[in-house]
Amino acid sequence: MKILFIGDVVGRPGRQMVDEYLPKLKKKYKPTVTVVNGENAAAGKGITEKIYKGFLEKGAQAVTLGNHTWDNKEIFEFIDEARSMVRPANYPDETPGQGYTIIKVNELEIAVINLIGRTFMQPNDCPFKKVDSILKEVEKRTSYIFVDFHAETTSEKQAMGWFLDGRVTAVVGTHTHVQTADNRILPDGTGYVSDAGMTGPMDGILGMEKQNIINKFLTNLPVRFEVAEGREQLNGILIEADSKTGQTKKIERIQISEDHPYFE
Amino acid sequence: MKILFIGDVVGRPGRQMVDEYLPKLKKKYKPTVTVVNGENAAAGKGITEKIYKGFLEKGAQAVTLGNHTWDNKEIFEFIDEARSMVRPANYPDETPGQGYTIIKVNELEIAVINLIGRTFMQPNDCPFKKVDSILKEVEKRTSYIFVDFHAETTSEKQAMGWFLDGRVTAVVGTHTHVQTADNRILPDGTGYVSDAGMTGPMDGILGMEKQNIINKFLTNLPVRFEVAEGREQLNGILIEADSKTGQTKKIERIQISEDHPYFE
Amino acid sequence: MKILFIGDVVGRPGRQMVDEYLPKLKKKYKPTVTVVNGENAAAGKGITEKIYKGFLEKGAQAVTLGNHTWDNKEIFEFIDEARSMVRPANYPDETPGQGYTIIKVNELEIAVINLIGRTFMQPNDCPFKKVDSILKEVEKRTSYIFVDFHAETTSEKQAMGWFLDGRVTAVVGTHTHVQTADNRILPDGTGYVSDAGMTGPMDGILGMEKQNIINKFLTNLPVRFEVAEGREQLNGILIEADSKTGQTKKIERIQISEDHPYFE
Amino acid sequence: MKILFIGDVVGRPGRQMVDEYLPKLKKKYKPTVTVVNGENAAAGKGITEKIYKGFLEKGAQAVTLGNHTWDNKEIFEFIDEARSMVRPANYPDETPGQGYTIIKVNELEIAVINLIGRTFMQPNDCPFKKVDSILKEVEKRTSYIFVDFHAETTSEKQAMGWFLDGRVTAVVGTHTHVQTADNRILPDGTGYVSDAGMTGPMDGILGMEKQNIINKFLTNLPVRFEVAEGREQLNGILIEADSKTGQTKKIERIQISEDHPYFE
Ligand SMILES: [Fe+2]
Ligand SMILES: [Fe+2]
Ligand SMILES: [Fe+2]
Ligand SMILES: [Fe+2]
Ligand SMILES: [Fe+2]
Ligand SMILES: [Fe+2]
Ligand SMILES: [Fe+2]
Ligand SMILES: [Fe+2]
Repeated sequence: MKILFIGDVVGRPGRQMVDEYLPKLKKKYKPTVTVVNGENAAAGKGITEKIYKGFLEKGAQAVTLGNHTWDNKEIFEFIDEARSMVRPANYPDETPGQGYTIIKVNELEIAVINLIGRTFMQPNDCPFKKVDSILKEVEKRTSYIFVDFHAETTSEKQAMGWFLDGRVTAVVGTHTHVQTADNRILPDGTGYVSDAGMTGPMDGILGMEKQNIINKFLTNLPVRFEVAEGREQLNGILIEADSKTGQTKKIERIQISEDHPYFE
Repeated sequence: MKILFIGDVVGRPGRQMVDEYLPKLKKKYKPTVTVVNGENAAAGKGITEKIYKGFLEKGAQAVTLGNHTWDNKEIFEFIDEARSMVRPANYPDETPGQGYTIIKVNELEIAVINLIGRTFMQPNDCPFKKVDSILKEVEKRTSYIFVDFHAETTSEKQAMGWFLDGRVTAVVGTHTHVQTADNRILPDGTGYVSDAGMTGPMDGILGMEKQNIINKFLTNLPVRFEVAEGREQLNGILIEADSKTGQTKKIERIQISEDHPYFE
Repeated sequence: MKILFIGDVVGRPGRQMVDEYLPKLKKKYKPTVTVVNGENAAAGKGITEKIYKGFLEKGAQAVTLGNHTWDNKEIFEFIDEARSMVRPANYPDETPGQGYTIIKVNELEIAVINLIGRTFMQPNDCPFKKVDSILKEVEKRTSYIFVDFHAETTSEKQAMGWFLDGRVTAVVGTHTHVQTADNRILPDGTGYVSDAGMTGPMDGILGMEKQNIINKFLTNLPVRFEVAEGREQLNGILIEADSKTGQTKKIERIQISEDHPYFE
Repeated sequence: MKILFIGDVVGRPGRQMVDEYLPKLKKKYKPTVTVVNGENAAAGKGITEKIYKGFLEKGAQAVTLGNHTWDNKEIFEFIDEARSMVRPANYPDETPGQGYTIIKVNELEIAVINLIGRTFMQPNDCPFKKVDSILKEVEKRTSYIFVDFHAETTSEKQAMGWFLDGRVTAVVGTHTHVQTADNRILPDGTGYVSDAGMTGPMDGILGMEKQNIINKFLTNLPVRFEVAEGREQLNGILIEADSKTGQTKKIERIQISEDHPYFE
């Protein structure tokens, strides 16, 4: 079982990178399943049905989200039908959409769980307790379990990694838009990386036009957040899981940019 | 000009890694100057005079700090005499210690500046304005300028990188204790990485005993923070700067751990 | 049914005010039940068993707490036996102690519920959902229901007031240590005030020595928090509830200090 | 010297209360100067030139602002000409507008200073240091000095009160939209109250439609913030200052609502 994960896709530049490189990556790595974080796919803010379906058409089997889930209002119209999309599972109970899904590919089932952190973020339900209760359901069906933990701090992310070590295939962090170099296999077999990084503009700030954000830091005046233009990058994670145990055997980082040219 | 930077040294395990590998790294890379972030060097909290002097004896020329600067009260007794140590420069004006220093090594001068972020951190003076005013002084003396930006968010760190691009040799982030994989040279020649990572325990949470911190997330009850035991790691950054312009020609990540064994 | 509530008692000065004035207030107002917030009773931080029992001996029937619940470690030894003490009910499930209690006084039962806010505070369980589930139990037994909502922002406090309007006798805010002047009866009969204020030093900052805290704001250096000395104050709320409906008929503020001398 | 201050005016309901009661209050109390906080005057968010001029026409001499200063973009067009309007003085140096002004009324000069807090707010310049430097200028001209400190926490507000005690006429807090009952004269003569309260809807949450905000707390879903309808209130502070020293001789709270009917 191979899982390819593509980190937060930001706007049109991010989608273009997916369009261009997802087919190539699939050809090269032959992932069993591909998961894309799409919380910033629509102009940096949220996702539309067209973009969601586009990801599936391009070859993804699941789309995860994060704190930008509701930024594009269109989501309320299609989230309940989007069976391959997950929003943070520890949102309050009545939240539209689903927090995890089980994807079936060639007789294999893999659970994809989305969680959101609470440190320096909104006060949602406890992600640790929530994943505990989800695992009770999911473990009956499959030992391939992929967790996208969308969180701000390395502390909360590492805590989740250790908390789930041996119980899930991998915990991959998202949200900071910067890929971390701490990809590793924890002692009980869970693949872990604090952040997968983002996919989109290479010369912005988290993918957004940089001058506006620098001005924001300098002046505290309101600014417009716009997706940056120019060079692009793709960041992702490739996980190889043991077919008996579901444990990670290999977890590597993928970077594609001018500084990290793609090789077939 | 080569600059070796070692990320947040946590407690005894971190100091042991410095003791063991700094001589080896110096032999291998022959850095002109070595800078160590020591904000967690004393049992994870602050730094003592003995530890500070130990870093210099082991071959560092400068020590940077961060939000844990004042955790060990001993610092108030020696900070004003510690000419090779810098605490965040954008602390309020009357703060003890210095925010930058100019190190002289073999006729070469290099400025080492420490800054601290404000997003999800204490409300200090503006780090952007502060570094502007420091650069006015420093630029007269040298074009080798190293900035340790101790900050929580990738957004504030990237903003600082772009803000200083072309004006300093490198902006290296610290504080999250996780090395990021975004080391790069910005278009106008500044070396940049969002975080150098930490040096110390490999199996803790940011270097601290993991079970206590997991319990904290689960229960919100008070816990003791203790430096973790077991395997160790060292994380750092190596920068090679142009001798004419002071610009970065090469910025690479250093990782030493069981997963990343050291080779001579 | 009359409920006398005394706001956050801070340290020895606060306890002295309770010792001196609680008997007088009981004589003057003849409350059916007296509730004291004791989260700062032990030197400003937490509560001890002796202090807890002292409040009961002085005539209180229940003690509420808040974010300082665990500051004095002694609490872990007696909280599970302290049947008249409540800590925030929306703490995680496995938390020691109880989140509400039902006090019986002269054939009358009154429920005392403690909740804690989440805005600018720790990420606990949702106080709104939690109180909903508590009310399902409590409503069967009594219509006298007193809620101490320990929260930072007026926004979250007012939201709780409106959320519970008509379902509880009163929502009294605590935590800011400053009495608000917005005591009122909401349209469906719930008494409401954003904050009861504190009981203890009059010339400190939230009851603590002021110079240290001013220095903290000026320098961001660590300071010692000590209970202030000098003049004292008592702040509280008096509620008169309808004996049929449990609704509030009258909610008034109590202030005792040099500026607001006590009259029999 | 009498200073009438009217707390955060929220939307049309707030402006209607000013229209109706400011003339009456001026007739009743004969203030030398009237100051209005207008940060929420335009539909709850910011202020327009028309509204600003309307306040002056209705009899105010100065308008203060707060964190909502920039919410209505029209402000950038008139703030630099609005000589009777002040935005927080501790905004970064290049911020449009002014942080204090000196109003002249019948041969008397009174300085009106606006400051903003940093705890749980944006990281602006230090309000304590800023007011220090402003006072150096202002003290030469007048001893009547009024400070509107727009801040979230009672801790930062009380710290400012004590910091300025004896140096200004009064420190009046704003921002929480709830009037506090701690109006007092500090030992060295400065009038102080933690919050003046708001002017506008009486049955909302901080003046905004309550159901949306309750839903926000329950679901974390995005909601529309709209000014509430229905009954209205006015909250303010009346200060009487000594004509020799500028110190406060009397500081009282003003509340007008159905619960607190206005009497001539
Ligand atoms: Fe994102
Ligand atoms: Fe995000
Ligand atoms: Fe650190
Ligand atoms: Fe740090
Ligand atoms: Fe308290
Ligand atoms: Fe509290
Ligand atoms: Fe306001
Ligand atoms: Fe405000």
